[in-house]
Amino acid sequence: MNCEPIGTVYTPFETTSEAPRQGFRGDAEGVVEVDPPYREGLVGFDGDRVEVVWWADRADRSLLTLDRDADRGVFTSRSPARPNPVCVTECAVLSADPAAGRLRLDGVDMADGSPVVDLKAPITTHCWDDDST
Amino acid sequence: MNCEPIGTVYTPFETTSEAPRQGFRGDAEGVVEVDPPYREGLVGFDGDRVEVVWWADRADRSLLTLDRDADRGVFTSRSPARPNPVCVTECAVLSADPAAGRLRLDGVDMADGSPVVDLKAPITTHCWDDDST
Repeated sequence: MNCEPIGTVYTPFETTSEAPRQGFRGDAEGVVEVDPPYREGLVGFDGDRVEVVWWADRADRSLLTLDRDADRGVFTSRSPARPNPVCVTECAVLSADPAAGRLRLDGVDMADGSPVVDLKAPITTHCWDDDST
Repeated sequence: MNCEPIGTVYTPFETTSEAPRQGFRGDAEGVVEVDPPYREGLVGFDGDRVEVVWWADRADRSLLTLDRDADRGVFTSRSPARPNPVCVTECAVLSADPAAGRLRLDGVDMADGSPVVDLKAPITTHCWDDDST
């Protein structure tokens, strides 16, 4: 199953080990740039949060247990190191320019230059009382 | 970027259009079966919720705007139809047998037989007050 990058995310982190363990724990700003062929997918974008699905292209895909704890499988964690390094980070949207394919985000935890494979409207609450999704 | 299936999810829904728009809106039960080479990734699994990352293999990858609303890009939604049909569903865990690679889940919204590409510990609260992730 082939994933094509739809864009790239730029962050202050050279590697994921420099990033906060989850983006919301920090307040790092970053930018998603969507490639021209996919920009139409942002039509009508007006969300204040977005789920960024990105590919941890420098992650070790051979690991099945955590480096720091061999008794915990990678599927019990959100570590980028896993057979398919598809990562999901929910960020706050600081500004959006859909026509330019550009989202400025707060709460990023990606390595700089990581390929973006998807953007989604977040499920805005885990209390299951929201009707917008 | 190549995704290998790590397993398969079995649900009551032949297509995603039969499924609730988000799994948590329904109470359908399903089963994830992790393939033998990846079962070690479930070592120590004891979560009561899990994020299932799955591949909507029957989705239309050519769509950039919603079928039901051409003024909304796919990146403003969670529709399975999108350039990379990577979907993320957070489910409740009814029972888990890590050695057998089997998770019985509540709140599924996948089409039956969809490939699973990843399993993750959910971020358990969007109030950002949880310290477990």
